[in-house]
Amino acid sequence: MSHTPRSKILVTGGTGLIGRYAVADLVARGHDVHVITRKRQPCGLTRGATFQQVDLADEHSIREVFERLRPTHLLHLAWETRHGVFWSAEENLNWIAITMHLARAFHAAGGRRLVGAGTCAEYDWNDQGLMSSNCNEADTPIAPGHLYGVAKDATRKTLEAYAKTTGLEFAWARVFFLFDHDENERRFVRSIISNLRARKRASCSPGTQIRDFMHAADVGAAFAALLLSETKGAVNIGSGVARTLAEVAITIGELMGRSELIGLGDIPARSGEPHRLVADTRRLTVEVGYNPDMSFRERLNGCISLLMERNTDLSLS
Amino acid sequence: MSHTPRSKILVTGGTGLIGRYAVADLVARGHDVHVITRKRQPCGLTRGATFQQVDLADEHSIREVFERLRPTHLLHLAWETRHGVFWSAEENLNWIAITMHLARAFHAAGGRRLVGAGTCAEYDWNDQGLMSSNCNEADTPIAPGHLYGVAKDATRKTLEAYAKTTGLEFAWARVFFLFDHDENERRFVRSIISNLRARKRASCSPGTQIRDFMHAADVGAAFAALLLSETKGAVNIGSGVARTLAEVAITIGELMGRSELIGLGDIPARSGEPHRLVADTRRLTVEVGYNPDMSFRERLNGCISLLMERNTDLSLS
Repeated sequence: MSHTPRSKILVTGGTGLIGRYAVADLVARGHDVHVITRKRQPCGLTRGATFQQVDLADEHSIREVFERLRPTHLLHLAWETRHGVFWSAEENLNWIAITMHLARAFHAAGGRRLVGAGTCAEYDWNDQGLMSSNCNEADTPIAPGHLYGVAKDATRKTLEAYAKTTGLEFAWARVFFLFDHDENERRFVRSIISNLRARKRASCSPGTQIRDFMHAADVGAAFAALLLSETKGAVNIGSGVARTLAEVAITIGELMGRSELIGLGDIPARSGEPHRLVADTRRLTVEVGYNPDMSFRERLNGCISLLMERNTDLSLS
Repeated sequence: MSHTPRSKILVTGGTGLIGRYAVADLVARGHDVHVITRKRQPCGLTRGATFQQVDLADEHSIREVFERLRPTHLLHLAWETRHGVFWSAEENLNWIAITMHLARAFHAAGGRRLVGAGTCAEYDWNDQGLMSSNCNEADTPIAPGHLYGVAKDATRKTLEAYAKTTGLEFAWARVFFLFDHDENERRFVRSIISNLRARKRASCSPGTQIRDFMHAADVGAAFAALLLSETKGAVNIGSGVARTLAEVAITIGELMGRSELIGLGDIPARSGEPHRLVADTRRLTVEVGYNPDMSFRERLNGCISLLMERNTDLSLS
């Protein structure tokens, strides 16, 4: 438990893949954490938080919750996240609208610090500099290629100007690539583990793309650290480590003792994907002061253990 | 009456300074024009349009109106416009939210073409190139300095990506400086006319700033032309003519025969204002094919006549 004063924190998306870990971390630090959720979704990680059953799209009820609770901090994670769908989903527009109303309700109720969830998809993935250097919050050009990234970028720019106008404190986390045992079963890490668990061949592309992977628990903890810090503006949330997809697949194979089932090159590489997307993590590590507790291998091992223990492998998302 | 097919057009902000002229123009061209408005505000210019009494913030009712009418065209002009206030008003966030819901409702009901109202305040007013050349839709950097411009820019970017994703046709008008006899009485043109009408001295700054002025009727007609065209993306709406504020003031003095009351330099120039903001109008004149019917002097004269006729000079806005 930290010795910082106890803050009243409102979290949206607090039952999601990242949110549950952020909530667990904030509760563990002794803060008064409230989670806005439509349905009460019981989850071990969010124990200790108070659930507020409100539809985020219900502007009136949202204002009431803020007026009643008067949170000092708002961690806004809720957004459209359905696997594959989110890139172009019309719901991105709804989430912009919801975020606008949330920000106003938070400010009107005396809120102090707002942290929102952005994405590495805000950066210009075609920028030549990214072939050799990491995505930097200040220097890498912003040019999102999908509706999702555009919507996130538009939200950030507006909240930044709103914060400047109103005196709100505002930070924006740009999340890179995450993995978790509970992620959608078609996602890279989980699908490989699931295949190997079933002693099936995991057919992959050659996997030469370089990405920045971070476990959802570390992403959640990084969000919690950012929320409790005084850092403003955009902050990358990633490991800062460049790994090829092949490397990740091979590591899973090794850890599970089933390397022979990793089928690199079985399927062609998807065209149009950026070669290299890695976070410059200096802001996160130096300014926010966040560093993960566990190594990448330990985190992968954790996912493998949890998925091996399951009787059935049904995705929650 | 034109020979183009009759379109079903929904207009928001159709009773506003620009909207009433756009509506008049669209009605005159024989289209089926519907104006969404909270209160029925009678106005000679909007005769011939059908009024839909709905609160734009009422998402549910908005969806119903679109489903019932199934408009092919949406001209979305409504936004926060209170003089002086709009630059930093929190309502800018609400208008983003409303616009997101409008776009989705329009698309869901089979809408084809959406035109939104942007602003010259989306451009980077500190760009050195603007000292000698006009704001160009493709080349002038975008870097809005106020919440208003940021909100408009965020809206445009999102709608552009949304249009690309859904197949909607989308254009965005960047409005420069307008004048009208009905504009807020503290605005430049009207305040000078009002002073001279009352035989009072119109105290101005030296007026060296260069601006692009267009009468609201021409702005409205340009919007109508853009809506009925097939031009996509950002289009400046302005005259393309560079005029100093001093020149505008002097012209009003001449037209009213009271030049001696123009007090240029009576008050100091406001600091931080850009020196020169003029529209590159090639897209509007060549691609959209719009050119105003009346000269700047004729339009100023029209305002003067209308304001001289009035018994009292009360602003409508």
